[in-house]
Amino acid sequence: MSDTFNEASTPPAPPASPASKAGVLVEALPYIRRFAGKTVVVKYGGNALAGANDSDALTLFAEDIVLMHAIGMRPVVVHGGGPQISELMARLGKQTEFRNGLRVTDAETVDIARMVLVGQVNPQIVAAVNVHGPLAVGVSGADAGLIVAAPHDADLGFVGDVTSVNPSIVLRLLNAELIPVIATIGSDLNGQAYNINADTVAGAIAEALGAEKLVYLTDIEGLRRVVTDPRSLIRQTTPDELDSLMADGTIAGGMIPKVESCAHAVRHGVDRAHILDGRIPHVLLLEFFTDEGIGTMVAGKETV
Amino acid sequence: MSDTFNEASTPPAPPASPASKAGVLVEALPYIRRFAGKTVVVKYGGNALAGANDSDALTLFAEDIVLMHAIGMRPVVVHGGGPQISELMARLGKQTEFRNGLRVTDAETVDIARMVLVGQVNPQIVAAVNVHGPLAVGVSGADAGLIVAAPHDADLGFVGDVTSVNPSIVLRLLNAELIPVIATIGSDLNGQAYNINADTVAGAIAEALGAEKLVYLTDIEGLRRVVTDPRSLIRQTTPDELDSLMADGTIAGGMIPKVESCAHAVRHGVDRAHILDGRIPHVLLLEFFTDEGIGTMVAGKETV
Amino acid sequence: MSDTFNEASTPPAPPASPASKAGVLVEALPYIRRFAGKTVVVKYGGNALAGANDSDALTLFAEDIVLMHAIGMRPVVVHGGGPQISELMARLGKQTEFRNGLRVTDAETVDIARMVLVGQVNPQIVAAVNVHGPLAVGVSGADAGLIVAAPHDADLGFVGDVTSVNPSIVLRLLNAELIPVIATIGSDLNGQAYNINADTVAGAIAEALGAEKLVYLTDIEGLRRVVTDPRSLIRQTTPDELDSLMADGTIAGGMIPKVESCAHAVRHGVDRAHILDGRIPHVLLLEFFTDEGIGTMVAGKETV
Amino acid sequence: MSDTFNEASTPPAPPASPASKAGVLVEALPYIRRFAGKTVVVKYGGNALAGANDSDALTLFAEDIVLMHAIGMRPVVVHGGGPQISELMARLGKQTEFRNGLRVTDAETVDIARMVLVGQVNPQIVAAVNVHGPLAVGVSGADAGLIVAAPHDADLGFVGDVTSVNPSIVLRLLNAELIPVIATIGSDLNGQAYNINADTVAGAIAEALGAEKLVYLTDIEGLRRVVTDPRSLIRQTTPDELDSLMADGTIAGGMIPKVESCAHAVRHGVDRAHILDGRIPHVLLLEFFTDEGIGTMVAGKETV
Amino acid sequence: MSDTFNEASTPPAPPASPASKAGVLVEALPYIRRFAGKTVVVKYGGNALAGANDSDALTLFAEDIVLMHAIGMRPVVVHGGGPQISELMARLGKQTEFRNGLRVTDAETVDIARMVLVGQVNPQIVAAVNVHGPLAVGVSGADAGLIVAAPHDADLGFVGDVTSVNPSIVLRLLNAELIPVIATIGSDLNGQAYNINADTVAGAIAEALGAEKLVYLTDIEGLRRVVTDPRSLIRQTTPDELDSLMADGTIAGGMIPKVESCAHAVRHGVDRAHILDGRIPHVLLLEFFTDEGIGTMVAGKETV
Amino acid sequence: MSDTFNEASTPPAPPASPASKAGVLVEALPYIRRFAGKTVVVKYGGNALAGANDSDALTLFAEDIVLMHAIGMRPVVVHGGGPQISELMARLGKQTEFRNGLRVTDAETVDIARMVLVGQVNPQIVAAVNVHGPLAVGVSGADAGLIVAAPHDADLGFVGDVTSVNPSIVLRLLNAELIPVIATIGSDLNGQAYNINADTVAGAIAEALGAEKLVYLTDIEGLRRVVTDPRSLIRQTTPDELDSLMADGTIAGGMIPKVESCAHAVRHGVDRAHILDGRIPHVLLLEFFTDEGIGTMVAGKETV
Repeated sequence: MSDTFNEASTPPAPPASPASKAGVLVEALPYIRRFAGKTVVVKYGGNALAGANDSDALTLFAEDIVLMHAIGMRPVVVHGGGPQISELMARLGKQTEFRNGLRVTDAETVDIARMVLVGQVNPQIVAAVNVHGPLAVGVSGADAGLIVAAPHDADLGFVGDVTSVNPSIVLRLLNAELIPVIATIGSDLNGQAYNINADTVAGAIAEALGAEKLVYLTDIEGLRRVVTDPRSLIRQTTPDELDSLMADGTIAGGMIPKVESCAHAVRHGVDRAHILDGRIPHVLLLEFFTDEGIGTMVAGKETV
Repeated sequence: MSDTFNEASTPPAPPASPASKAGVLVEALPYIRRFAGKTVVVKYGGNALAGANDSDALTLFAEDIVLMHAIGMRPVVVHGGGPQISELMARLGKQTEFRNGLRVTDAETVDIARMVLVGQVNPQIVAAVNVHGPLAVGVSGADAGLIVAAPHDADLGFVGDVTSVNPSIVLRLLNAELIPVIATIGSDLNGQAYNINADTVAGAIAEALGAEKLVYLTDIEGLRRVVTDPRSLIRQTTPDELDSLMADGTIAGGMIPKVESCAHAVRHGVDRAHILDGRIPHVLLLEFFTDEGIGTMVAGKETV
Repeated sequence: MSDTFNEASTPPAPPASPASKAGVLVEALPYIRRFAGKTVVVKYGGNALAGANDSDALTLFAEDIVLMHAIGMRPVVVHGGGPQISELMARLGKQTEFRNGLRVTDAETVDIARMVLVGQVNPQIVAAVNVHGPLAVGVSGADAGLIVAAPHDADLGFVGDVTSVNPSIVLRLLNAELIPVIATIGSDLNGQAYNINADTVAGAIAEALGAEKLVYLTDIEGLRRVVTDPRSLIRQTTPDELDSLMADGTIAGGMIPKVESCAHAVRHGVDRAHILDGRIPHVLLLEFFTDEGIGTMVAGKETV
Repeated sequence: MSDTFNEASTPPAPPASPASKAGVLVEALPYIRRFAGKTVVVKYGGNALAGANDSDALTLFAEDIVLMHAIGMRPVVVHGGGPQISELMARLGKQTEFRNGLRVTDAETVDIARMVLVGQVNPQIVAAVNVHGPLAVGVSGADAGLIVAAPHDADLGFVGDVTSVNPSIVLRLLNAELIPVIATIGSDLNGQAYNINADTVAGAIAEALGAEKLVYLTDIEGLRRVVTDPRSLIRQTTPDELDSLMADGTIAGGMIPKVESCAHAVRHGVDRAHILDGRIPHVLLLEFFTDEGIGTMVAGKETV
Repeated sequence: MSDTFNEASTPPAPPASPASKAGVLVEALPYIRRFAGKTVVVKYGGNALAGANDSDALTLFAEDIVLMHAIGMRPVVVHGGGPQISELMARLGKQTEFRNGLRVTDAETVDIARMVLVGQVNPQIVAAVNVHGPLAVGVSGADAGLIVAAPHDADLGFVGDVTSVNPSIVLRLLNAELIPVIATIGSDLNGQAYNINADTVAGAIAEALGAEKLVYLTDIEGLRRVVTDPRSLIRQTTPDELDSLMADGTIAGGMIPKVESCAHAVRHGVDRAHILDGRIPHVLLLEFFTDEGIGTMVAGKETV
Repeated sequence: MSDTFNEASTPPAPPASPASKAGVLVEALPYIRRFAGKTVVVKYGGNALAGANDSDALTLFAEDIVLMHAIGMRPVVVHGGGPQISELMARLGKQTEFRNGLRVTDAETVDIARMVLVGQVNPQIVAAVNVHGPLAVGVSGADAGLIVAAPHDADLGFVGDVTSVNPSIVLRLLNAELIPVIATIGSDLNGQAYNINADTVAGAIAEALGAEKLVYLTDIEGLRRVVTDPRSLIRQTTPDELDSLMADGTIAGGMIPKVESCAHAVRHGVDRAHILDGRIPHVLLLEFFTDEGIGTMVAGKETV
């Protein structure tokens, strides 16, 4: 699959001519008009920040978010930080135990997770955006009751499910033309923190906001109908097809929360969900403002 | 000079690559942020509409105005229509007399001028914009006291000078996110119409609105320091230099009202004035959203 | 019928005594209170402007509109201009062909119609009102998508029917305490202009605005139950009776669009429709603010 | 002087013709426009309510106030009630002592005064207005700190001077399009009530509101330059002339507080003050909405 | 019953320690949060003002109302004044006749009642509150159409029933963070005043406002299930039980309008109604902001 | 000094009587009124959270903050976390070097500091408050440009001084009736984080907000004029006296930033600054809502 996404490593494109530049802007016009004022929830993975070139990737991502904001969209960034949590636990000499793919989370572990998500990953993203101006504001799910959580499974400790989302703090920031960056920590009514799957939170927030789009930035090209066949990339699909693909095992593992959230969101008021390849530079701009088709789009019905 | 501006007639540029597209959008970002919410008054000449390809030029112009609007700018279009007035007068068998370059305007003539400007040219521009949505609204200077006029010279009849500008109707439309298209008819307090130089009106409106920019779309490349030398094109200048160039006759004729208005506007609160070549396709986009330098810019002080 | 409405030609009434003046004002009080804040759509005919005394009649009409506005009503003026269109076509040597009472309208004809309505008749009315202050604003049906039109009949060319009315531009002006004066040009989504019957447009706008009243100023005393009998003047009627009178031919010709619009409007939310004799000086004031009964009133139900 | 103001007792004027009615309305138009949104403080005397025909006079007065309100003015009524206070004190067998024309006011007397002003006179005026709709609201100077008072003279007991006016409660009612009717009771910061001269309060409130007009309805024709000469009626005067007339004793007695307040108000932001003959039916309408000149007007400068 | 409520006559409590003070404030916290922004209608009886210590009781009552206001509640005071009316009638030598417990009210009597309620009792309460700042505003039921009344029984004259309540004037005052103090005079559409039972008015206003609470301050400890047994005090009850207690005669006499209003209000949107002993100092504070249980509470359903 | 503040360890006070409870609430009334709507910045030390009973102390502190909010104040919490930073650095095996009492802060250290302040201490405080409802929102100085910082001294690395404060994000939260909890991390325009003295930040934010009060919760009783003499506790002082006490060395060490900030704030628009003993339970309530005098108050002038 590597040769498909070699743009990042190719030499920069030659400068566009004036006529070409005008053409790009005019091509973008109908998309700009269509998306003005629309809310878009973008899930930015902890993986994207954990690699060697994370800083460059974050810089490009921040540019896209700021440009979306500049032309009148209302972007919301949701992030996790699994690798970073594991790294700090290792440095602190604390063993991580996984059960069914979920981290067993005792009181100390959830405090570490909160510290990493709220105090390390979130500020990094806020800082990258704010190079362009005082736009981003870090938000924890514990702020103003944003994400109320309950235990997922008593054996797992403080791993939480989303009980309810109160998006008013996010709406206030959006209405103030700010960019919320959300760390996926939840809280119960006693103030106990929970670690929650960031993909699930992103979907729940998109639904609560009635977002136009829910976008997952991943490190794959998109979903495939046949796992081993790059030519089977799914350009567009429906929640029903996604159910089938999960039922027959085509979609599995870490993609499940993303795909379930896409299906649920599109069934509950979100217009489109996208699984995009975050490794493509400026993939958000290309998806939103050009005629290119990128990754996998989920819509309520097949559209031509 | 013809070879300088051959883009319009060259074959269309090849389609840009995704990376190149993203590059153009990213290049536009700082300009989009800088101009968001800013008011720009664009004087669109009657000549531009009177030529053979007027319809194509108007289509491109309308696209630029709509794109400016889409990304949060507040464009105001001001237009004249001298050639169209002359044409209708000819069809009606009425002689046009010019004195010192100004049309002698009796009662019937000003009624014809008003009919052409308000009823013919203005609706054409409104229609071209509104192909993109219900955005443009035609405004006459007689609406809600926008332009109060007084006779310029008793011998010329109903040729008027601007006495005062009450921009509240224009501001209301801008605040409603609409695009005002203004026909340069003025009125005295008794309801008598006057024909007023459209270049002058554009400057007066830009000042009254505290516009960020005043732009004249012309059929020249820009101002020159030496009339006969294309290489002497002035990229950037100041009101003081413009005064000198008018005093020594370098600038003369129909450019005088434009240049005087540029100098006056920049001295009275407008940040920048531009004289651009309206024959270049999408010249407004190129000037506003790319790093290209186009035409002549007038600023209060030399900037590097 | 002439002796009934001879006020216009009689000598002016002697000045009223102070007590009499106070009496008139007190008589007007309940009407002023009843109509405060209410929207009234007044169709002003092109005929009224085309006669010998048009200027005087327009002056009186403008006074009435301004007084209605001054006491808190929200008047909207809708006008046509058939005679003026015919006159300019004649001057331009262009034949007018009528089919079933409708003007065959080729591309040049609709451009002429637009020029006359938007550029000649409309500014005259705006100017007459604005003698009293910067109140009136000319509006074309093509502005901000106000009147979307479609062809009435392919054989007639650009004669249009109203497809939809988007009254938001009119509401904005009313909310800004301005007086919209609407030229009855429509537009399709491609920007093509259409000439539309002004009586029909007036009714459609009154419905879209949820107006309190729809008033047609005509050159007849009112509707009659027996065409030849002045004593059969209808003081008050219902949409059902109007249907009957049209079905049996009592009402015919140019009155049809007015009467159809009255019936339709009253059935769709407009409280009252009136057919008044525009030749009576200040007929609007007398109808609205005195106990006199004038012309024909259409209401949903007979009222005592 | 009686023959001058015999309108009240003359037979009603014959009904005006339609043309005459229209004429009165048109005559009123410029005044309506001029006074729209303007605040007018009207002092209504307790005498006016105490006479034989008080009910009729109050009915006419209420009509005027409601009509002023209906056309967009903001009337404020201020009233006293000296005769009514004296009457209740007599019924309660309590002696009234006057010193230098001021009522000696012990604790019981001020309670009686408050009871009469707030509980008897004020509700009568409110009721007369509210026959026309739920418009009037009774206000005491003790409500929400409207009138803070201090003792005028220790020997007089609870006769107060105005220390400060906080007009916010009145402004709220005006902004809610209600008609405040103010009883001239003041209060100190301990809640002790004071009886205050109503003429003085009216002036203080007009100043605090920045009223356009301050009007005193009296039982005289107006001020005279020569007390005994009806022909010396002053149509228009200035604060300076009023000072002279008070200094030389031409103006004396109960007129002093009115005249002092007129002069002070005009010197402190009120545009015009008027002393009108409240016995003329509808005198407010005649003064405000017709070309008649009534009573005495005080303006900052002589106007032609 | 006297020994139950002897706090008023006991020596003042010793000063609380700092820790104890903090404890009281913390105990109040959840109640403060619960009642913030909630409207509470408090009926304050004329009896409370007519006794020997009325001034002290009024001072304490005013403190409670101001404290409720200070912490964000929206108190509305409704009062009557039967004893005060009787007293003035006696002083004026006018006989009071009662029929079935209702005062026969001729025209003079209703004028006296209005004078006492609006002009004597109401200003006393307003003054007591306004010692703490310009907060209270006296309102009569005749102001702005607040209480429209009709005759209760032709034989009783101007004793009225509530026909309708238009609470907009009260809402405006509440929204302006003011404290309305309402005298229970009603008015018919002709401006005729009526005397109305204040208990009934309080209930009607609480319903019209959608109040959280309706509170009657009385001179009894609360309702009893057995009239003669102090131990049968009802702490909490329901509208249905109240109906039974009235049907079997346990509740009778002057308590009927209070109890009927409590039952009706709780059935029509008011959350809780309370009958409290107004003789307990600061009974409102104790009921609202401490864990004490005071008097009788009426709720839609039994709560534990 | 220990015996002075033994309330925390004494047995709880006996329950207050109803009369005593009412007395405390009435005592609090004037303070509640005085502070309604006022902004108070409270610096909460990291020490307070680091001790054995930190959880209890935090619980009491959170109650105070919520009660202040409940009665209409606008509290802002600012916190540091020095001990917690040191603890994590120790666990991560990283040496802390201090120079002149300031921590030498390399890139890794500032990342750790940010992680602790934003991701550990801040969420703890937010959680403690939000037990009472979704009120608190964590804010970092890097959010929306709140605190712009520059290096304090090149040798110290990323220890910052406050360059500017943009309080708009804090104001938005306050206007939304939320409680901002601010971690004292700053950022330069390139997104680089700085660790800043929390006492200094608290003062800068109080000034930027125009706060009514700036409060430091410390572990001392207050300032003393003679260090060794508990009886020399300063109840009230001025910025000038504070300058003297710092100049002569009476005030030294870690108190310097607090005392300098108090003096600066009071000189720049903050009404009062307080140094309180955070070990006293509910010290904020006692200081704000009772007549007790606690700790040291700094005001512009001596007040009696």
